[in-house]
Amino acid sequence: MRVLLVGAGGVGAAATRIAARRDFYDLFVVADHDFARAQTAVSGLESRGFVAAKVDASSAQAVADLCREHGITHVFNAVDPRFVMPIFDGAYAAGADYLDMAMSLSHPHAEQPFEKTGVKLGDEQFAASGQWLDSGRLALVGMGVEPGLSDVFARYAADHLFSRIDEIGIRDGGNLVVAGYDFAPSFSVWTTIEECLNPPVIWEKDRGWFTTEPLSEPEIFDFPGGIGEVECVHVEHEEVLLIPRWVDARRVTFKYGLGKEFIDVLKTLHKLGLDRTAPVSVGGVSVSPRDVVAACLPDPAGLGDRMTGSTCAGTLVSGTDKDGNPRTVYLYHVVDNEWSMREYGSQAVVWQTAVNPVVALELLATGVWRGAGVLGPEAFDAVPFLEKLVEYGSPWAMREQ
Amino acid sequence: MRVLLVGAGGVGAAATRIAARRDFYDLFVVADHDFARAQTAVSGLESRGFVAAKVDASSAQAVADLCREHGITHVFNAVDPRFVMPIFDGAYAAGADYLDMAMSLSHPHAEQPFEKTGVKLGDEQFAASGQWLDSGRLALVGMGVEPGLSDVFARYAADHLFSRIDEIGIRDGGNLVVAGYDFAPSFSVWTTIEECLNPPVIWEKDRGWFTTEPLSEPEIFDFPGGIGEVECVHVEHEEVLLIPRWVDARRVTFKYGLGKEFIDVLKTLHKLGLDRTAPVSVGGVSVSPRDVVAACLPDPAGLGDRMTGSTCAGTLVSGTDKDGNPRTVYLYHVVDNEWSMREYGSQAVVWQTAVNPVVALELLATGVWRGAGVLGPEAFDAVPFLEKLVEYGSPWAMREQ
Repeated sequence: MRVLLVGAGGVGAAATRIAARRDFYDLFVVADHDFARAQTAVSGLESRGFVAAKVDASSAQAVADLCREHGITHVFNAVDPRFVMPIFDGAYAAGADYLDMAMSLSHPHAEQPFEKTGVKLGDEQFAASGQWLDSGRLALVGMGVEPGLSDVFARYAADHLFSRIDEIGIRDGGNLVVAGYDFAPSFSVWTTIEECLNPPVIWEKDRGWFTTEPLSEPEIFDFPGGIGEVECVHVEHEEVLLIPRWVDARRVTFKYGLGKEFIDVLKTLHKLGLDRTAPVSVGGVSVSPRDVVAACLPDPAGLGDRMTGSTCAGTLVSGTDKDGNPRTVYLYHVVDNEWSMREYGSQAVVWQTAVNPVVALELLATGVWRGAGVLGPEAFDAVPFLEKLVEYGSPWAMREQ
Repeated sequence: MRVLLVGAGGVGAAATRIAARRDFYDLFVVADHDFARAQTAVSGLESRGFVAAKVDASSAQAVADLCREHGITHVFNAVDPRFVMPIFDGAYAAGADYLDMAMSLSHPHAEQPFEKTGVKLGDEQFAASGQWLDSGRLALVGMGVEPGLSDVFARYAADHLFSRIDEIGIRDGGNLVVAGYDFAPSFSVWTTIEECLNPPVIWEKDRGWFTTEPLSEPEIFDFPGGIGEVECVHVEHEEVLLIPRWVDARRVTFKYGLGKEFIDVLKTLHKLGLDRTAPVSVGGVSVSPRDVVAACLPDPAGLGDRMTGSTCAGTLVSGTDKDGNPRTVYLYHVVDNEWSMREYGSQAVVWQTAVNPVVALELLATGVWRGAGVLGPEAFDAVPFLEKLVEYGSPWAMREQ
């Protein structure tokens, strides 16, 4: 396996550190638009097969050229979702397989954005599925932690815990606190705004996909791992688009444990139009307000040293068990920031996102997972993945509700 | 009198319409960096002595050149307070008198910003007072509605209502609502952020000027004119720097009726660093986050048609009356948006700000007000000003508390 990792930001750098402890690949090219950042990520790892490169992720041609230069077999996309399509297309053009952690972007329904879906997350990628299938090549999409591990949990529940599933609801929350900042999100604020202010999508078996109001139906969820109760709200997320394609359930939702403060901040940004990506003209230059918001906040990847607490990703499944009894379980994965900083020098959210695609790449390299077309994580057997996660030193768990 | 109005924005355009109904001037040049905006402001008023011009308000030289070109006797500054010093200096250089509605900017104390003053509002202007006095020339500073009319009210109270004043507290509030917008401030958001997030300044006779926390000591004030109760908080404002120089009081404060929603928005902008004026780097360009916030919101001057409600500016004075009895009065001025739109095509806040400097210019033109040096509105007799305001069709009132 010859990997091209596109993006040496927080998640990309953490994935590099995780992969460096494994040996399933022959070459691992780490590319970024900022070459110095790519060099920093591979520094000291050259003898383990790591190489730095510069790439323009907005250009499919540039991605394809870099693939050909290094004989890449698998492109691993670790940049923000604006760049999904050029990287996805570049990998295809160069004959490589592809893996990402977020799918192509959605566009709201023009007339009824909070009732009907428009262009859905991943639609652009799934439109190319036949082409990938015909070439016998794999695009494994949404293979981070959420989406990613959350989808693996859904598949595990369907295969091993339930005879019938009523609802699969992803629940993500944490109690991370960053010392020294009034406000410092632990994950990309650009992506968080994109997820949280787009119309949230819900899937129901007898209705299909539909949307609702952003940040709606707040509920308090009690997270494990010492995290406790956090306010969760509906958020647009890939799992709702992925799980129903391969797992039989009556309803699929995603609720994000943003907490009251973050919810208030997002509402204010939206009220002031600062969530918009379309450029505004300011004193002779043109900028995207959302990019300005991101530029004003500290880089979450660099906050690990000042952070305390844990983050939890998980899948709440309710239905009927194999014996015909009602059952509700929460399958989850907790990462403590102190542990991830000590072990890998990566903050918890970033590390938790990064470990899952590395596990998936190893399963693909060893032939345990194989497939063709555009597939989600729930298209594969969950058991070897969950075993491998334990082997990586980061066990998952299950709580009966 | 030959006037150069710098700034054809909301307040400048409203002042043009108000002045056009008077005849105290020989020439009224309306200048803006956007020449088309200046032309729009004077359109149809050419026969009344109005002329449009282009000016760079950040250049004292450009202001002085324009003054000389038109033989200007009075420069009327109606741009945001970043440009106070070049316009003030340009007027001086060209031998003209000067009038503004906001004073030179403050800079917080480096070590104890919420306890001690650093550079105060107007300090840069007052530093030049001797020079203006020696030349026999007048800079009338802070001559809008607040500061401006509020200072006139303070002087009136001291001269005619009280034998001893305990506290002069400005209270500003309104019930304006803009249809069709989630959030649309009725006044320059740049200036509102500047005022509201700088450390508020307080004056006490035995302590001098000192500062406190932004948005502190919330109180509910019941505004007249059908406005009702609004949450008011301490805000940095010129009156606190001006009034104690000419009016004997034990304490001077300013509280702004921002209302809960606006207070929350300001707190969030500050938490995210979006109130900052220092440029941040965003995708290869450099922009001030506060300018981006302003660019995302609608221009308040253009919202009059969608606005309903009134705005109130006033001065709450407590102390001992001429007979030795305790007395508290609120001297105030209410403008109803429907009235100002119908009469002048200007929204209420903008019109209320604009009328006062025009009244002051008329008093200067007719010699009723005269003086030299850098002076505030309370340095002059209040009665002719308040009478003139009534003559302009916009009466003031007084409420015993």
